[in-house]
Formats: sequence, C-alpha cells, structure tokens
Amino acid sequence: MPRIDGARLIADQRRLARFGAFRTGVDRPTFSPQDVEARRWFAAKLAEIGLDPVIDGVGNVFGRSSAPGRKLLMGSHLESQREAGWLDGALGAVAALEVARAMREDPACRDLPVEVVGWADEESHFITYLGSRSYIGDIAEAAIDAAADRTDGRPLRTALAEAGLAGVPRAAIDPERYVGYLESHIEQGGELDETGLSLGIVTSIVGIWQYRIVFEGQQNHAGTTRMAVRKDAGVALTELCGAIARRFPKVAGPRSVWTTGRITLEPGAPAIVPGKAEMIFQFRDAEPDILAAMGAALEDLVRQSDARGPCRARLTRLSASIPQRMDERFRAALGEAAERHAPGKHVAMPSGAGHDAQILARKIPAAMLFVPSIGGISHHWTEDTAEADIVLGCQVLADAAETILRRYA
Amino acid sequence: MPRIDGARLIADQRRLARFGAFRTGVDRPTFSPQDVEARRWFAAKLAEIGLDPVIDGVGNVFGRSSAPGRKLLMGSHLESQREAGWLDGALGAVAALEVARAMREDPACRDLPVEVVGWADEESHFITYLGSRSYIGDIAEAAIDAAADRTDGRPLRTALAEAGLAGVPRAAIDPERYVGYLESHIEQGGELDETGLSLGIVTSIVGIWQYRIVFEGQQNHAGTTRMAVRKDAGVALTELCGAIARRFPKVAGPRSVWTTGRITLEPGAPAIVPGKAEMIFQFRDAEPDILAAMGAALEDLVRQSDARGPCRARLTRLSASIPQRMDERFRAALGEAAERHAPGKHVAMPSGAGHDAQILARKIPAAMLFVPSIGGISHHWTEDTAEADIVLGCQVLADAAETILRRYA
Repeated sequence: MPRIDGARLIADQRRLARFGAFRTGVDRPTFSPQDVEARRWFAAKLAEIGLDPVIDGVGNVFGRSSAPGRKLLMGSHLESQREAGWLDGALGAVAALEVARAMREDPACRDLPVEVVGWADEESHFITYLGSRSYIGDIAEAAIDAAADRTDGRPLRTALAEAGLAGVPRAAIDPERYVGYLESHIEQGGELDETGLSLGIVTSIVGIWQYRIVFEGQQNHAGTTRMAVRKDAGVALTELCGAIARRFPKVAGPRSVWTTGRITLEPGAPAIVPGKAEMIFQFRDAEPDILAAMGAALEDLVRQSDARGPCRARLTRLSASIPQRMDERFRAALGEAAERHAPGKHVAMPSGAGHDAQILARKIPAAMLFVPSIGGISHHWTEDTAEADIVLGCQVLADAAETILRRYA
Repeated sequence: MPRIDGARLIADQRRLARFGAFRTGVDRPTFSPQDVEARRWFAAKLAEIGLDPVIDGVGNVFGRSSAPGRKLLMGSHLESQREAGWLDGALGAVAALEVARAMREDPACRDLPVEVVGWADEESHFITYLGSRSYIGDIAEAAIDAAADRTDGRPLRTALAEAGLAGVPRAAIDPERYVGYLESHIEQGGELDETGLSLGIVTSIVGIWQYRIVFEGQQNHAGTTRMAVRKDAGVALTELCGAIARRFPKVAGPRSVWTTGRITLEPGAPAIVPGKAEMIFQFRDAEPDILAAMGAALEDLVRQSDARGPCRARLTRLSASIPQRMDERFRAALGEAAERHAPGKHVAMPSGAGHDAQILARKIPAAMLFVPSIGGISHHWTEDTAEADIVLGCQVLADAAETILRRYA
C-alpha cells in the first residue's frame, strides 16, 4: 500500500498557493502570469519524480509514465476563479502528484503507472473545461480562435502565445492508454462539513440545463401609464419566478437545485415601466428523467406566461449537459479505501458542480473523491479544508489508485 | 380675446426642435451646447416681443414684463431627456411665448402682463426641477456644488461655467409679483389620445413615493448548495414583487400606479446563488391618504418578508413628494376656454408625471393644461402631438390667461 507523506503534500499545496496568492486564497486565472508560472512549477515537480512533463497547446500539464501497461490518469485543474480559494482544483492536482510520488517510493507499487495531469481552464476564463475537452477532442480550432478572457477580453490565441504555447500541439486522448481517470476536489458545498464526515465518494456529476428567458412588453412612463394598460416586462418576469417557486418542488428530485442568477430590466430606470426583462435560469440534477421533467415544467410555465400576456415570453436553452455516472468499480475502490482509513466517515453523494471528470467520463471510466469545504464556502478566498482531511483524502486516493491499477489495468 | 397665430407657433416649435435634433425628436440634455444655444435663442425671441430677457445663474430664461400690476408667469422647461421627443416641455415654453406675443398684438390685451419662463433641468440631468426649485428658494449652493451630469459626470459648476453662467445670480421668486403660474405640456400618457379628446385640465399633480428595498442572503454555489439551506436574496425579492402585485390593488386608488423599475442581483452570475438583491420601487397618487395607505402596505410586506426569512429585507424611502392640487379658479378659466374652443373635447385629469407647476404651486396659484400624446408615447424620439391640438391648446391657454389676469390680478 503506497504511503503518502502528509507534510510533503501540505507543503506542495502551500507552495502552489503562493502563485497568485490573494489574502488566504489565490487569484490565478487561466494563463495569467501567475498561472503560467504555476504550470511550469507543476511540470518541474512531475519531472522530479521521473514522469515525462509535457505542457500541451492549451496549457494542460501532463506527467507521462514510461511504465508498461494501462495507466491511471489522475489530476484536476490548476487555475482558480478570481480571488478564490487556495485549494479547489489545485487540491486534486497536487494530490495526484503526491500519489504518483508515493507509488514510486513504494517498491511494491513502483510499476503501477500513475500519470498526472493539471488541466487548463476548467474555470471558464476562456472556455469551460477547455483543457479536458480539448484532450477528448471536443474543442475545434475555430473555438480557440474565437475565445477571449471573460474579464479583460484578451484573445485566447494571444494568451497562449504569451504563455509560450503558440504552435505547440494539443494532446489528444488515446482511450486505450488508460484504465481510467481519478480526480479529487473540494466538495464546494456544506454537506460533509455539516454532517461531520471527511470524504465524499461521487456517484454522478449532475447535468446542468441553462436558459435565457426574455419578456417583451411596452416601455412607458411610470407616472402616466395606467396599471390596466401596462405591459410591464418586469412584472411578467417576477410572476414567472413565483410560478417556478410553486411548480418546481413538485417535479424536482430530492437533490435538484434551481437558480435565477441574473435579472435585468430595461431600461432599468426608476420612473420607466420596463419594456424588456431577461433572466438567466438554470437547474441541475444527476437523473436525466428529473432534468427532463424540470425542463418540461419550465417550458410549460413560459408558454402559459406568453399565452396569458400582456407580455411576450420566450425561452432559449443555452446549454444542457448530460449527467455523468461515475464508474462503479472505481467507486467501490474508493469506498473500500475510505472505510479502511476513516470508517463510517464517508458518504456516497452526487456532485452538484461540474468537473473535468465528467468530460473524461465520456471517453474512459472516471471517478471522484471529495474532501470537506469548511462552511461550504467555495469560489471565495476564505475557502478552506482542514489539513487532516486533505491528508486523509490523498491517502484514500492512493489506496484506491493501487486497487484500480491492480484489479482493472 | 387674444388670437394666437398657429402657423407662427408651429414654426417656432419646429425651430426650437432643431437645437439637438435627433431623428424626429431632440437630444437636448440640460447645459449641453445645443441646450445653451436653445436658451439663447429663446431669450432673443422674448426680447423681440418687448420682454426683458434674463438668463439666471441656473439657466432659467425669463422674459420680464414692465407692465404694471401682478403678472401671470407662463412657461415650461426647455431641455429634453436623451433622444426624446420634440415637444414635451418645449411645447409649453413656446406656447407661453406665443400667448405673450398674441397679447401684445391685441390692443385690448396689450396691458395684461404675461411673463414667460423656460425652466432649466426639470428632466433631472443634474438636479430634478433645478430651475423651478432654485426660483422658489429650494436649492442650496451646496447642492449645486455637489451635482454632476448623470450621464457623463460633468460637475454642474463646470456646466454652468461653460454656459457662461459662472457668477451670474440666481433669480428668486417674489410671490407678490404674480397672480399665478400657468403651464402647458404634453400629457405623456395615452388617455386623451385613446378617448379622442384634445385637452386635459390638470386637477392635481401626483405625489411620488420612491423606495430602495435591499435583501441580504448568502452568496453560494448554485450547484452545491441545497435548496433547503439556501438564503437566495433574488427569490426573496421576487416573492415581495408577487406580494405587492396581490396587495396593492386592494389599497390603491383607481388612478394609483406602482412600478419596479430596476432589479439587481449580486453577483449576477448564472451559477451563483444571489447573496444580495435590490429593487427600486415607486408609487404615485394624487390623494395623500392613498399614498399613505400604499406606503403602509409596502412597509408591512417588507416587514413580513424580513420576519419570515431566510433573507434580511430592508426598506429605505428615497423620496416622498406631496400631491399638489391645481388652483380651482385657474382650472375654471381653462375649462371655460376649452369649452369655448373645443366643446366636449376636454376632460379634468390628474397628472401622473411631475412638472415644474408642482414646484411653483408651493408659492403661488398654479394650473396646467395637457395636449394629447399620440399613442401615449413620451420620453422617446417618436413622441408627437397633432399640430391642430398644439394650436388649439395654445389658443385655450391664451384665453385662460386673459381671464385669469382680468379676474384675479
């Protein structure tokens, strides 16, 4: 059984968090100078343990193994959201490094081929899941040509050139190379923290369906336009929000979530009846049937709003990702390891957030392990996880990696 | 009876609309170069008919009469909203010019002293009702020091200096000078147009009570935060909107209007549960008791929202203007003139919009006459009024002015 070195793991996590340090977290957007430095540092760490480091044409950092047989790919993403936490994806990248290192140090495991990856731009500064999607062949050159940093508008091509990656080939997955993919990450929600558990074994990654709903009414003077003749797009929008709040609990599953994250009224002036209103609405669930039921309910409510008037209501589905079940054999390996190191302190749970593992799962078996987020805080510089949980998670990951490679490679 | 010259009136209206012409309307914000030019042109037109033109320290253009006895002040504001209609306040300013001119041309009316005014910034580019409020002594120097253009941030002091008005004294009303104030304006709503009437005699100008309502919840990840533990400030806000929609019809009067003109969710990202939400809400009525009842209902609903949780809800009243009744004697004079020139084509109605007349009404008797807005359109470059209605309105205004001066001066 590979024994990870907790002190070394934490030291590497802390070292990585110095790239773009922001208060107690990091500000390390994809292809910022601090992100590029972090990727080079990570590649050097992979080289130190005998892996062949490759930074590909979209910034993915691979540590390739020359050992024979099918490999287990492990890692997560290296960049952060703006002014975000020190762990998030970095936790999984460094944990993978430590697992590969522990394997190499254990004479009994030395020949078990773990490959490490630090993905680029899971956080969508340019393109959501850029690195993992590029690796599975889901990103066209034209998409790279068209993408720009969502914060400052810097074209992705410019960012890649500034990172020294112009003309560097993009790596492409050979599914036969791998037994599968294993990722660890912070939970990002509060379930483990609230229930006093230390480990979450992910059953599936939810599908996310996202919509734009636009209401068109009639812009008018808020003093001279009588209530009876108004076509107030804002009123139509808030009525739909109320209808969603009443209907969705009836069609949703116990784990479903739905969110209106943005509302815009136009022109947005205190004394003008809004002529146009727009909302961005999304829902998530791990079950395709429940996603479909929520989608049908939303379509029905928008159709009713449009039919009732006086405003037009139009629904546009912006995206609809497929829930991805995690590999059952890998989940069992994680569960055995968790029970060995933390009996009764682990739970099977879906992931409400998206992860690179759902992209890899489209090509090879994949699984994920969560460690607790203190207070459920995520994407904020105060995000944190107890050091003991970080160390425990990495040891469980190492054990599971050994099991997976011995049983299934 | 003074006879106005319809062709001359329309020619002057069209000439004034060339300052800042935008499509079929005007873009003439307060103290823009085109607004300053328009004010100089208007002062020159007043001088042509023997009035003493004065542009005061906040841009008000007065045409002073040297005739003996108490004067009737007539006019409206000269600037426009951005990309707005060609008439709006300009209609009332030019109509006042034409009435004063017609009086002067009629030997029987030559000694009836009409004074003309073109107010500055009723439209609130810098300060709402700046000119008329300054005239009645309701604007402190400190307020002028602090004000800036709402569009480009240019300080009011800079704008005044660029208009050549630095150091120019502000005019101050002597209520004893006036028998009262008479203003004509487009209706801005659709009531006259829809009912086929030509003239509205304003009974009162509504009071406007405006509020900011802020909801504080907990910002969180939209995928990992379960519905049961969310404190979604946006949901709390849209629930309040629904509660207002159910309660207000029960406490409002038949002419009451209420509007949510702006909604902001923070951070406003599709995948983040809003931690903060804000709305700007206002209502209007001509009856103080109804305003008070709507205010109490709103306070009650916000208190209920706050008490129910899970979000905090706080209400701040930003402003609460007093409804202003128009002078009954002046209304009667307008009604008689309207019945003479357009029998059965006029109606008494409140003004849902604010006007300089409500400011003057705090110091001297005041009244207003409306002409129809085609399609109820206002504050948009497509705003328009039939020429026949413009001419009719001006003639009625002239008749009423004569009556008021003969009966009450």
